[in-house]
Amino acid sequence: MANMANSEACASALELFNSITTQGEHVRALKARNASKDEIDSAVKMLLSLKMSYKAAMGEDYKADCPPGNPAPGINHGPEATEAEEDFVDPWTVQTSSAKGIDYDKLIVRFGSSKIDKELINRIERATGQRPHHFLRRGIFFSHRDMNQVLDAYENKKPFYLYTGRGPSSEAMHVGHLIPFIFTKWLQDVFNVPLVIQMTDDEKYLWKDLTLDQAYGYAVENAKDIIACGFDINKTFIFSDLDYMGMSPGFYKNVVKIQKHVTFNQVKGIFGFTDSDSIGKISFPAIQAAPSFSNSFPQIFGDRTDIQCLIPCAIDQDPYFRMTRDVAPKIGYPKPALLHSTFFPALQGAQTKMSASDPNSSIFLTDTAKQIKTKVNKHAFSGGRDTIEEHRQFGGNCDVDVSFMYLTFFLEDDDKLEQIRKDYSSGAMLTGELKKTLIEVLQPLIAEHQARRKEVTDEIVKEFMTPRKLSFDFQ
Amino acid sequence: MANMANSEACASALELFNSITTQGEHVRALKARNASKDEIDSAVKMLLSLKMSYKAAMGEDYKADCPPGNPAPGINHGPEATEAEEDFVDPWTVQTSSAKGIDYDKLIVRFGSSKIDKELINRIERATGQRPHHFLRRGIFFSHRDMNQVLDAYENKKPFYLYTGRGPSSEAMHVGHLIPFIFTKWLQDVFNVPLVIQMTDDEKYLWKDLTLDQAYGYAVENAKDIIACGFDINKTFIFSDLDYMGMSPGFYKNVVKIQKHVTFNQVKGIFGFTDSDSIGKISFPAIQAAPSFSNSFPQIFGDRTDIQCLIPCAIDQDPYFRMTRDVAPKIGYPKPALLHSTFFPALQGAQTKMSASDPNSSIFLTDTAKQIKTKVNKHAFSGGRDTIEEHRQFGGNCDVDVSFMYLTFFLEDDDKLEQIRKDYSSGAMLTGELKKTLIEVLQPLIAEHQARRKEVTDEIVKEFMTPRKLSFDFQ
Repeated sequence: MANMANSEACASALELFNSITTQGEHVRALKARNASKDEIDSAVKMLLSLKMSYKAAMGEDYKADCPPGNPAPGINHGPEATEAEEDFVDPWTVQTSSAKGIDYDKLIVRFGSSKIDKELINRIERATGQRPHHFLRRGIFFSHRDMNQVLDAYENKKPFYLYTGRGPSSEAMHVGHLIPFIFTKWLQDVFNVPLVIQMTDDEKYLWKDLTLDQAYGYAVENAKDIIACGFDINKTFIFSDLDYMGMSPGFYKNVVKIQKHVTFNQVKGIFGFTDSDSIGKISFPAIQAAPSFSNSFPQIFGDRTDIQCLIPCAIDQDPYFRMTRDVAPKIGYPKPALLHSTFFPALQGAQTKMSASDPNSSIFLTDTAKQIKTKVNKHAFSGGRDTIEEHRQFGGNCDVDVSFMYLTFFLEDDDKLEQIRKDYSSGAMLTGELKKTLIEVLQPLIAEHQARRKEVTDEIVKEFMTPRKLSFDFQ
Repeated sequence: MANMANSEACASALELFNSITTQGEHVRALKARNASKDEIDSAVKMLLSLKMSYKAAMGEDYKADCPPGNPAPGINHGPEATEAEEDFVDPWTVQTSSAKGIDYDKLIVRFGSSKIDKELINRIERATGQRPHHFLRRGIFFSHRDMNQVLDAYENKKPFYLYTGRGPSSEAMHVGHLIPFIFTKWLQDVFNVPLVIQMTDDEKYLWKDLTLDQAYGYAVENAKDIIACGFDINKTFIFSDLDYMGMSPGFYKNVVKIQKHVTFNQVKGIFGFTDSDSIGKISFPAIQAAPSFSNSFPQIFGDRTDIQCLIPCAIDQDPYFRMTRDVAPKIGYPKPALLHSTFFPALQGAQTKMSASDPNSSIFLTDTAKQIKTKVNKHAFSGGRDTIEEHRQFGGNCDVDVSFMYLTFFLEDDDKLEQIRKDYSSGAMLTGELKKTLIEVLQPLIAEHQARRKEVTDEIVKEFMTPRKLSFDFQ
């Protein structure tokens, strides 16, 4: 009987294991075909609940490569490994079950990039003679590829250029969307180099239920917010793919070159495309890759193909550039270097990236001072205790507190930030006080952005978006 | 023992059957990945020899859907069905085992197009007031889609435009390549409509071992031969994809629209692409499709999307336009109409299309009078008998005689052609005399082409290839 019961338990555990595998595939498929957030969320919930049942039944976590009764030797079964395995990062979906957000150290290992360490930050400081941006000091830009090579070139007076971009899926941009642009502007200033900014309106047309005109309209509106970050009009070219493809003698040629050297198998592996995906989606990665090569911009770089590109972007965009770096030597171009940022957390917590379609998930660039106050007070996930007494006694948890996380992004004063961390952790500072500090940082920041954006006329946008020479001093 | 032998025979027949299936898949795979002609030919030979063994063993032809001992009821097992089944037609490969060439009636059924019948030819004559071109009279343009709709529009004074193209895989063009252009020029003349000609240099770059510059160079060289066909410079726009994509505000937008509405599954089904194909190949069909829609040419048609397109082309290009016609209603555009031609046979026989890489497989546009004479005399497959005596007694076979086939393309005089057919079939005309007639037709035709091509200066090519208004009278 004991044996019988045991074998029954095994059968049921195996069934559960198989259900998890199936449900996991289902989630991946939903993500790959860009299903609605609701649909994905509910499938993920089901998956997590199956995993909980499994853990309850088996006394250990579900492991994809280890069916019940078949423990894989040497694999770490600890809770940390499990947590990291549940992180999912690709250009369309970022998902983690940890309130601290994605485990970035594990992501570096998984993606094969390098950590931005103290040594590299010091080298940037030496090369530019400028104090490193607080995004570097605080690990918000935390990972890189070949940044040392860019610095070698820079120190030898060899040229490089910056490339970043945005997928204009709606008119609404939130503060999180500004992170790469704030940092890119700093890079442009301290290195004094040209910059190209790609608006992937074609991508948004392909992935979303938008018309071409809508996607292009969003590109132009978003360009205004980007310009409001303060980019130098003489050193910056912003382009919509839909527009620039039909204006550039170099862009399409590089797109075709890249497309010749990437197979469906490769994009399937990198991006999770399936046979049911449109050929537009399948070939799009080449369009995001092409600006990594300088002769995609003959008006700026002529026919030079040897100018190194440096791409500051959120880490979820890395798959595109892993592909690009794989192709580059095959077509005789240098590999682009990268600087990766962490994700900006949603007000509700670091488990997900913010959504431009949920107005309460973040602070939008159009929010009034009052809206900012209300949103922070009402929606910002708190690491505080349930009662003031408990909070005073045990202190708050900065690692999961969204207001504190936002301050690491926007409060420039290191000493003040450290003081807040100490006071909140010790319980000396209450959640209401922490939120008040954030509100007082965000309100002027957004108001100033809005004032600068108002100054951005249609003529200015047009000039930024006109293919033209940029002023820089290359050898 | 009898039973035993029987079951042994069955096993061996089944093994043979499976070998044929495997070899057939191998041939398809070679074709799909554009293997060398030699490689494909040798695999096809092996396939045919396996099929012969099978027939010898089983007393009946190999049928893909009918393994030995499992006859599928209701399927026609006659030799005709078998012959047609061995025809293979896609944009990269045309293969048949019949010396008469492809069975075009079966192709019409398989592709779902319509036969160009006497009634349609009469209607074209009434609409244009011109005697139908001998390519129509002789069934060289033999199939169509929606030609009646084009004529309805034309009779109601509604506009349409012509679109044809060429894949510039080398500088060398042969007489067979001129067929669609000769016919398109006639259509342009009798209907007085604008024409766009696509040079798919991007396709050739993607499929062949060429650089972008080589592919573009071939496009320009081939354009000269096309212009030498006599197109009206005021009504004709010739474009290289590599060039025009970066010059047109409308082309890429239509490409993306099409790419959004076609899945990998669909192009896999239509073109036989596999997961190992480049994403360039996979997305290319949208680029051949886009010129079917008038707003791909804003310089000619403005933003009008309602102008019907008529595409004269060889039938092997039909898969592209089946896909295009499938997409058109989804993106709010009219379906293009088509006129399909048969294939121009190689000198060695109608089993294959000619190859630009084999100088003896056809008459090239650069051949001298002497080369033409030698090639026809030496290489043109003859339907004559082994000896003069036999020929006089039994007559020659025009159905397989390549010289006679070439005359149906290039000898305009119907009466003279009919007389030759009678005389050769009866044995009154010998092979040498038939070949002499062909040589006398081809020599001046090629010489005149060469003279006209000499007149085509770089400036003229440049003007044909410059996006510009065309002169036409649309309502």
